Amino acid sequence: MKPHHKVLRPSDFDNVAGNGLVDRRLFLTGSAVAGVAASGFAFPDPATADPLAIESWMKVPGSPFVGYGQPSRFEDKVVRLAANPPNAPGTGAARTPLHRLNGTITPNGLHFERSHSGVPDIAPDVHRLLIHGLVKRPLLFTLDMLSRYPMESRIAFIECGGNGLQLYQKDPAPLDCQALHGLVSCAEWTGVKLSILLDEAGVEPAAKWILAEGADAAGMSRSVPLAKAMDDALIALFQNGERIRPSNGYPIRLLLPGYEGNMHVKWLRRIKVTEGPTMTKDETSKYTMLLLDGKSLQFVFPIEAKSVITQPSPGLTMQGPGLYEISGLAWSGYGKISNVEVSADSGKTWAPAALQQPVLSMALTRFRMAWRWKGGSAVLQSRATDDTGYVQPTRAELIANRGTKAFYHFNAITSWGIAENGEVKHVYA
Amino acid sequence: MKPHHKVLRPSDFDNVAGNGLVDRRLFLTGSAVAGVAASGFAFPDPATADPLAIESWMKVPGSPFVGYGQPSRFEDKVVRLAANPPNAPGTGAARTPLHRLNGTITPNGLHFERSHSGVPDIAPDVHRLLIHGLVKRPLLFTLDMLSRYPMESRIAFIECGGNGLQLYQKDPAPLDCQALHGLVSCAEWTGVKLSILLDEAGVEPAAKWILAEGADAAGMSRSVPLAKAMDDALIALFQNGERIRPSNGYPIRLLLPGYEGNMHVKWLRRIKVTEGPTMTKDETSKYTMLLLDGKSLQFVFPIEAKSVITQPSPGLTMQGPGLYEISGLAWSGYGKISNVEVSADSGKTWAPAALQQPVLSMALTRFRMAWRWKGGSAVLQSRATDDTGYVQPTRAELIANRGTKAFYHFNAITSWGIAENGEVKHVYA
Repeated sequence: MKPHHKVLRPSDFDNVAGNGLVDRRLFLTGSAVAGVAASGFAFPDPATADPLAIESWMKVPGSPFVGYGQPSRFEDKVVRLAANPPNAPGTGAARTPLHRLNGTITPNGLHFERSHSGVPDIAPDVHRLLIHGLVKRPLLFTLDMLSRYPMESRIAFIECGGNGLQLYQKDPAPLDCQALHGLVSCAEWTGVKLSILLDEAGVEPAAKWILAEGADAAGMSRSVPLAKAMDDALIALFQNGERIRPSNGYPIRLLLPGYEGNMHVKWLRRIKVTEGPTMTKDETSKYTMLLLDGKSLQFVFPIEAKSVITQPSPGLTMQGPGLYEISGLAWSGYGKISNVEVSADSGKTWAPAALQQPVLSMALTRFRMAWRWKGGSAVLQSRATDDTGYVQPTRAELIANRGTKAFYHFNAITSWGIAENGEVKHVYA
Repeated sequence: MKPHHKVLRPSDFDNVAGNGLVDRRLFLTGSAVAGVAASGFAFPDPATADPLAIESWMKVPGSPFVGYGQPSRFEDKVVRLAANPPNAPGTGAARTPLHRLNGTITPNGLHFERSHSGVPDIAPDVHRLLIHGLVKRPLLFTLDMLSRYPMESRIAFIECGGNGLQLYQKDPAPLDCQALHGLVSCAEWTGVKLSILLDEAGVEPAAKWILAEGADAAGMSRSVPLAKAMDDALIALFQNGERIRPSNGYPIRLLLPGYEGNMHVKWLRRIKVTEGPTMTKDETSKYTMLLLDGKSLQFVFPIEAKSVITQPSPGLTMQGPGLYEISGLAWSGYGKISNVEVSADSGKTWAPAALQQPVLSMALTRFRMAWRWKGGSAVLQSRATDDTGYVQPTRAELIANRGTKAFYHFNAITSWGIAENGEVKHVYA
């Protein structure tokens, strides 16, 4: 048995930045810490009271087994926030409740979805994937055929290009983390490398792009550079171990690690190898970036480094002064997150957060920071840096570059204001 | 854009072991491979036919968004195999359909469960966790209190000590991978390190063990060495991002990475710090290992290295000669998997499989191997080695040590026999 390690108390750790941020060693594995929450909690004395009642559920046998399990009925508020416009249900998005989750994996039932004409009910035995265009041998695949190819798994985030668009507005939208940033999720995706199938088809020298088309009623389709298709694109068949969910592309979705969400074409039916981009409706009428000079920037693919604090956040009211964990998510479409800093004083001072290991490229990264809240007002912010050296900008910096009429790829710092009564609100700071 | 890499074909790769096993470079990232499956597949010519019909689901808008998503209705056979004895429903187990999954994460709805008196319906606001016994300050926690402590996430497998027990039988049970080995699953668990709470309580010098007790009607409880509790034990609150499922311990389970499943006490209500093991009914009447001399070995905690091929496996009939991926899972309660070898000739020759990265300690590891099946009979086996150097034994070796009356911790090599007609069966070899 290991000898007991030295017990550290919060008072052993210095403040590392303004307004109560405490050294991250307080949260790192191996540093045992006592008294973390003692200042805020009252513990009844179990010697004199009956601290543990025999509750009703201990007195009778519980439920039998079921084939496919569901969350507890007490968690029925932990759902996606869905927009179903009355005239076009299924044309919109459903957002992940980031403030109710922890860790980095999004459970499949809560992975965000963005659909352009609802979720098709695809019969897998009938569905085909066609690879054609500038290839020597056009190929047509059933799911059974695809299942014999070498597979690969990777944990990857997907973020909608429109996530956070409300933060371009002049005034801070009175919304929570789910409504503002819930169009990002993360799962373990498994499938066949697209490069293997393209090599089998034999790509012609003139080819520089592909077109990927979905089997939904919108025929959602995007052009993708061939270089990306040959690099790390995946013909994804499984999501967190099981077949991809209908809302995420059942039975096949294109996975383009780090690229904006709509390019990960769901219900994938066709890859056409082309010389140039196809200029589909989905890449001309949408998903371009309006610039300050009134021109639109087309083909903005990777998601730039971004982070958001998920706890505390609006709706999660602080329960009195004391120690808290500030926790959140960071991600970059360019690689790994190398650093996340947290501020409790509106960006005046910053301290590095602990990053949950292993940090994976183009996956959500959970960061954690210790905070001794004294009960005063505060503004919490997080700032991510990725391994290219790119630093998440402030909102003012982003707006200075893009104006307030932009729509996509909002990745600036989000600010949560904490009031003296513990309420948390979205603010600009 | 990157220059196109050299295209490799299966004929470029030598056989690396008997009966058609092909070099694992065929499957490694970066080695593009063409013609992998061409020998077995007929591709219609899309130039002359109409290869892609406009199916019914492309002609009408799809379904609207829902708050909590479910799998496709076409996947309704991908469920846990549940045993609900008529007189005691909920006393038994439900097994993960390993042969229908891929990757390493088990989706929450399919995580295996083993319950001793069904699944309790616990109200989270009422539930408490008590830490008492040989401590200076007994502590009583609500879920709200626990949520303020530093959290940690880790991807970890849990395996029931009874998984694979049918392989102790004299004759091979005519069962599939789910029925034989489905009592192992893997998830990202997030919670508070138990060491932090024990340090806060102040463990007395005489303490060497803890008792962990569940809030189910069985009061399932186990003794755990204090050294493990202070090392990597987690008071787990989240499973793959969301609150732990009822069948896996909602709202709190003890996570003891690498230890046999029943010790990860579900519905955790009490940790009592003790001098010795408590000798609960669950560790005296069950979960001991019957030895050859008739004595029982008590307190067999970590799971020894094990692996199983999930595809192909019984129920997944081979679809004609050609190239296939052999894929499976390996795990060890002692650390990381360092190597998995595959044999297609009943263990006469072996070749190393590719391991999906990142390989994590005490998590499921996916291995993959290329196989050119010529249509003859074959026996497929996998053999895992962990980073302690321990090698998964043959069944004959395990039986020689434990006899056939043992029950728990079966971790020997499993053999799948392939018949000339492509049928796959559990065999002893």
